[in-house]
Amino acid sequence: MNEQLKGFFNEYRKLIDARLPSYIEDLSTPDTLKQAMTYSLKAGGKRVRPLLLLATLDGFNRPIEDGLDLACAIEMIHTYSLIHDDLPAMDDDDTRRGQPTNHKVYGEAMAILAGDALLTYSFELITSMPAVREEPAKALTLVRELAKASGPCGMVGGQVADIEGENRSLTVQELADIHHHKTGDLLAYSIIAGAVLADASEEDLEHLRMFAIELGLLFQIKDDILDVEGDSDKLGKPVGSDDGNNKSTYPSLLGLDGAKKMLDVHTMKAKEHLEAVKMDRTLLLALTDYVAGRDH
Amino acid sequence: MNEQLKGFFNEYRKLIDARLPSYIEDLSTPDTLKQAMTYSLKAGGKRVRPLLLLATLDGFNRPIEDGLDLACAIEMIHTYSLIHDDLPAMDDDDTRRGQPTNHKVYGEAMAILAGDALLTYSFELITSMPAVREEPAKALTLVRELAKASGPCGMVGGQVADIEGENRSLTVQELADIHHHKTGDLLAYSIIAGAVLADASEEDLEHLRMFAIELGLLFQIKDDILDVEGDSDKLGKPVGSDDGNNKSTYPSLLGLDGAKKMLDVHTMKAKEHLEAVKMDRTLLLALTDYVAGRDH
Repeated sequence: MNEQLKGFFNEYRKLIDARLPSYIEDLSTPDTLKQAMTYSLKAGGKRVRPLLLLATLDGFNRPIEDGLDLACAIEMIHTYSLIHDDLPAMDDDDTRRGQPTNHKVYGEAMAILAGDALLTYSFELITSMPAVREEPAKALTLVRELAKASGPCGMVGGQVADIEGENRSLTVQELADIHHHKTGDLLAYSIIAGAVLADASEEDLEHLRMFAIELGLLFQIKDDILDVEGDSDKLGKPVGSDDGNNKSTYPSLLGLDGAKKMLDVHTMKAKEHLEAVKMDRTLLLALTDYVAGRDH
Repeated sequence: MNEQLKGFFNEYRKLIDARLPSYIEDLSTPDTLKQAMTYSLKAGGKRVRPLLLLATLDGFNRPIEDGLDLACAIEMIHTYSLIHDDLPAMDDDDTRRGQPTNHKVYGEAMAILAGDALLTYSFELITSMPAVREEPAKALTLVRELAKASGPCGMVGGQVADIEGENRSLTVQELADIHHHKTGDLLAYSIIAGAVLADASEEDLEHLRMFAIELGLLFQIKDDILDVEGDSDKLGKPVGSDDGNNKSTYPSLLGLDGAKKMLDVHTMKAKEHLEAVKMDRTLLLALTDYVAGRDH
């Protein structure tokens, strides 16, 4: 990873890691629920979505502080989706990032409720971000777009399409559509939200939207490739786990070489869109190379 | 039920019944998800929360149209909570309102996701209500208060406390606190939201808040009484079902007569608070008598 990006990530990942549980600490709610919410928020992960938002803000030369609440709200939504995805009725996963999943520790009922609580609380959190006081109309736009990216026409719809796509062979377009909603919409929102907070022009927003969609695609293609040839210790999950689920993946549809070619093509497209945006693009460019080149 | 209230309820319940599924129809999301969301939205119920909001608006002489989107958003949140509560990991109910529960028809995974989708979509829906265009700051307040009433410090927290209160004897205060959050907060929000939309004074809001808390309490005491001596055909669920769950109820803690006395005391308190509000109180007063006197 590029040194400047590494410095940025290390600094702000620590900030996000510390800030996420701090919102929950003072809530007036049963301790078990706080613990279950906090457990998954503390389980780590790359914090890609919050860091995308902060890197975009930074690229427009705006203070990081303006985006912290919204960045944490997005991470809470991502975290709730992981808790629900891991449930026995869904992917039935016992571990995530090398630790027992939420329902393995707190039971299924509490895991469902911890997910519901994180999702709902994220909308409360947004309404306390700094932009709300000065520019309520902008804040409402950010609420609407977050709900869209996470809801039936975004992440939840993508998860349903993903489940329905199991045990049958998908076309590459179908696979891309599933991931576009399941993971791409919230990744894209993270970037767009940073740009909206920074009052980016309509033209810049449109290029960033296209960039974000390509970045989401890169993310998934690379994930699928790592599932075939990655190192299970670095990944924190067994290699080849997609295989056992009978899920279509880019390597299963295109072969490993085909998937790698697709990765290259979309890395190029992502950079083309990014280069059209009037901002300091250093971090987002380094991030694109990292997403396409990472080993875990 | 009072004739004026009956007329109001019949007219606007039909409107709410028709409007709720119409939001889902045009969503760009997999058909199965739409069906699962729509199934529970169409399962009926009394639509108490939307009607509370509309009756409050009407009492302040404001057009019903101003509150319809928000009323439907609240009903979506109530509906998601029922879908998740019925899951095998939670109450494990096979029927609700005489029909198979969501997971019995669509499976557990889809029921979890339909709940998640309804919850998330409700926040998208709020951002399209008429007040958003003219008064974004007011709309944001309504978003924040809805998230609070439904989240870890409101409904979800109450549900956790309810689960943790099973199989042990509660005090009357503990029982009241559980219901205050599990059902009271969203009922109270429905009334407060109507008053906020109607630009009620701080003083009126405070009295309405107290009224709403009393009304929520009435609702629950009466539910518990009906579970002991109601008619299972009218209730749409077996009488005595609370008994089997080892749950504390007002009749189990106070005896049936004690619970009925408590119902009378809080009916009086509710009316005292209501009478302090400067509005046409006819509908809310009739509703209070209905909640305390209903046979299902």
